[in-house]
Amino acid sequence: MIAEKMKSMVANSSAIRAMFEEGNRLAKIYGAENVFDFSLGNPNVPAPEAVKQAVRELIDEEDPIALHGYTNSNCGYADVRETVAASLNERFGTKLEGKNIVMTVGAAGGLNVILKSLLNPGDEVIAFAPYFGEYRAYTSNYDGVLVEVSPDTDTFQPKLEEFEGKITPKTKAVIVNTPNNPTGVVYSEATIKKLAAIMEAKQKEYGTEIFLISDEPYRELVYDGAEVPYLTKYYNNTVVAYSYSKSLSLPGERIGYLVIPDEAADSADLLGAANVATRILGFVNAPTLQQKVVARCIDEKTDISYYDRNREALYNGLRECGFVCAKPEGAFYLFVKSPVADEKEFCAAAKKYNILIVPGSSFACPGYVRLAYCVAYETIVNALPKFKELAKEYF
Amino acid sequence: MIAEKMKSMVANSSAIRAMFEEGNRLAKIYGAENVFDFSLGNPNVPAPEAVKQAVRELIDEEDPIALHGYTNSNCGYADVRETVAASLNERFGTKLEGKNIVMTVGAAGGLNVILKSLLNPGDEVIAFAPYFGEYRAYTSNYDGVLVEVSPDTDTFQPKLEEFEGKITPKTKAVIVNTPNNPTGVVYSEATIKKLAAIMEAKQKEYGTEIFLISDEPYRELVYDGAEVPYLTKYYNNTVVAYSYSKSLSLPGERIGYLVIPDEAADSADLLGAANVATRILGFVNAPTLQQKVVARCIDEKTDISYYDRNREALYNGLRECGFVCAKPEGAFYLFVKSPVADEKEFCAAAKKYNILIVPGSSFACPGYVRLAYCVAYETIVNALPKFKELAKEYF
Repeated sequence: MIAEKMKSMVANSSAIRAMFEEGNRLAKIYGAENVFDFSLGNPNVPAPEAVKQAVRELIDEEDPIALHGYTNSNCGYADVRETVAASLNERFGTKLEGKNIVMTVGAAGGLNVILKSLLNPGDEVIAFAPYFGEYRAYTSNYDGVLVEVSPDTDTFQPKLEEFEGKITPKTKAVIVNTPNNPTGVVYSEATIKKLAAIMEAKQKEYGTEIFLISDEPYRELVYDGAEVPYLTKYYNNTVVAYSYSKSLSLPGERIGYLVIPDEAADSADLLGAANVATRILGFVNAPTLQQKVVARCIDEKTDISYYDRNREALYNGLRECGFVCAKPEGAFYLFVKSPVADEKEFCAAAKKYNILIVPGSSFACPGYVRLAYCVAYETIVNALPKFKELAKEYF
Repeated sequence: MIAEKMKSMVANSSAIRAMFEEGNRLAKIYGAENVFDFSLGNPNVPAPEAVKQAVRELIDEEDPIALHGYTNSNCGYADVRETVAASLNERFGTKLEGKNIVMTVGAAGGLNVILKSLLNPGDEVIAFAPYFGEYRAYTSNYDGVLVEVSPDTDTFQPKLEEFEGKITPKTKAVIVNTPNNPTGVVYSEATIKKLAAIMEAKQKEYGTEIFLISDEPYRELVYDGAEVPYLTKYYNNTVVAYSYSKSLSLPGERIGYLVIPDEAADSADLLGAANVATRILGFVNAPTLQQKVVARCIDEKTDISYYDRNREALYNGLRECGFVCAKPEGAFYLFVKSPVADEKEFCAAAKKYNILIVPGSSFACPGYVRLAYCVAYETIVNALPKFKELAKEYF
C-alpha cells in the first residue's frame, strides 16, 4: 500500500532498527556497560546550563500566547533572525540581515526547505563521497538526482578534478559538509577557493546558477584550532544550513537555520520560496520556544574538551591496535579503514566483541567504517581491549 | 532560479504577506485597537498553566541529554506514544498501542508524513470544499492530484453523491476536517457512516485501498455539547492527524501526532513508512521537550468558554447586521456569505472599516468569507458597529 519510492527506504530503515535492537538485546545479556555502541551521532555532552536558564526565564517572563504562537513569518521571529545575523556578521565578517535568515527544524529541515525551493525534476545535486546518506533521500524527495563524486581515501578532501567533470547544465546544487560526517575532515580555505573557482567557471560556461549548499551542523566542533572557512565569502550562490543539534546539544529539539545571502542569485525569490517551503512541507515554523532559547544562548557552546579527550583516546588506541585512520579535525567521528575489503564483514566481526559500528557503504564509501565518539569516555577505555582482540583477527 | 512548482505559490504567499503588512500599516495609522483583524487562526487563549509547570519540571528534573536528544525511533518517545494511545483508548474506546502513534511536527507535519508515505505520482486525494487550501500543496508535494468535491452551501456538510462519483481507481486518500476550517461545521455520525459505506463499496469495486485521513486540530474546540465521532471506529483504513496547536494553544511549538491503527491495510508497513518519512522530510522527530510536555498535560484543555463567548457575540452581531452564516459547532471560525458574488470585493470593502477577513476562494468556496474569532472579545465588540456600517452598503 505504501508509496513505491518508500519501499526500499523502509527496508533499509528496518536494517538500522535491527541494529539498534541488537544493541538493546546485547545490553540485556551482557549489561549496558559491556556493550560499546559507536553507531549513533547523538551528542552526550549536556546542553549548556544557559539553555536551562533561558527556558526557565522565557517560561516565567514571556506572554505564553506570543511564546508558543505561530510566528508572523514562516521564517521565524524577526528578533531571533536579527540576533543570528548579527552574530554571524561579528564572527565571520558577513553582511547579513535578519531577512537573510530562515529559522528551520534543524539542518535536515533546512536542507529539505532549500532543495524544495530549488529543484525541478531531473535537476542534479552533487555530493562528495563519503557523505551523509540522507542527502540522497532529501534530493529524491523533490525528484532531483544525486550525483556522486568518488572519495579520495588518502585525504578525504573533495576530488576536484572529478567534480569538475561531473558538473552538467542540469547541476543545480552542490552539497558540502565540513567538518565532515563521517570523516571529521575540514575542507581547507585553499580547497574551498578551488571548488568555488570551478563552480564559477561552470556557471559561466553553461549560463546557469549552481548553488553551493553548506551543511554545517559540526561547525563549532573543531579541534587543535582548526579553521572552518565561512563559505558565503568565497562564492555568491552559497546557502548555509546550520543546526544547534551539536553546538548546543539540542538534536531532539529541531532547531537550526538557513542563511540565504543577498549575493545569491534571485535572493528575494529564493527567500520567498524558502518561506513557502517551510509552510507547505508542514514545518510551518521552527519550534518557537527553541527559537528564543538559541537567540538567548547565541554565544554559548558545548564543552568541546569532552569530545576532544574522546577523540585522542580512541584515535590513539585504535592506531596502537594497528587500525588505520585519518586524525579528524572536527565533528565526533572516526572513519577507519576496514582491515578486509567488505567492511560489513568487519562490522559483523566487531559485533562479536559487542562493538557496534556503521559500515562506510552507508556513506557511499565501502571499505571503511564510522565510529561515533560522542560516547562516555569509559566506553572508549573499556572498548579498547576489545578492539585489541578484534585487531588480532587481522594483523 | 526557484523551482517551477514554487513560483505560483510564492506569488500567492506574497499576497498573504501583503495583507498582513496592510494590517500593520493600518495599525500604525489608526492604532492597533482600531484595526479588526479576523484573518488569522492563531489561538489567543494562553496555554494552560499546567504547560508552564510541565516545562519547569522537565527542565529541572530530567537529564538534559535525554530530554533534548534524538528519540530512539523517529516516531517519538515510547512512553509518550503509550500515554497518547492510552488516553485515546479511554476517551474513544479505541484499542491503540504506543506503536500506532507517530509523534509529528503538528498536524501539518503529520499530513505531509502520511501523504509522503502513501502517494505515488498521479494518485488522487479527495477533499470537500470548503477546505484548508494547504491540502493542495501537501498533495502536490508528493506529485498527487487534489480532487475537489464542490461545497454544499446550505449545510456545509460533504456532498456525498458527488463524492461517490469522484472516487476512481486512482483515489488513494480522502481528507476530512471536522470540526471544519473554515465553516466550524461538525460532520455528524450519520454522515460519517454514509461516507465510510461509500468508501468501503468503492474499495471493493476497484480492489483498492482508500485511506480516510482525518485532520483534527479542532477536535477539542466544540460548543453546545457537539459530538465529534472518532473516525477509526467507522472505517478501517483511517489515519488521524492531530495537533495540540489549538487544544493546548501551542501552535508555534509544532507538536501533534498521527494515529495509524492496526486495522489499516498493511499497517506495519505504513508505520514503517511514516517513521522513514518523518526522518527524510527533515522533521527527524517531533520536538522532544514538547513531546514530554503534552504527555504530562494529556488531560488538559484550553479554555473553550473564551471562544464560545466570542462565537455568540460575533454570530449574533453579524446576524443582526443582516449577514447570513451557519452557526458553527466547533473550531473558531465563522463562514459568512458575501453580500456580493465576488467576495474579494467584499473583503476590500471591509478593509475600508479596518476589518480584515479572508476570501472564501482561499478555501475553494468563493462567495463566502472566513472570520477567525480567536481574537480579544473587545475586538468583536468594537468591530460590530463597523460591521453595521459595512452592512448598510449592501442591505
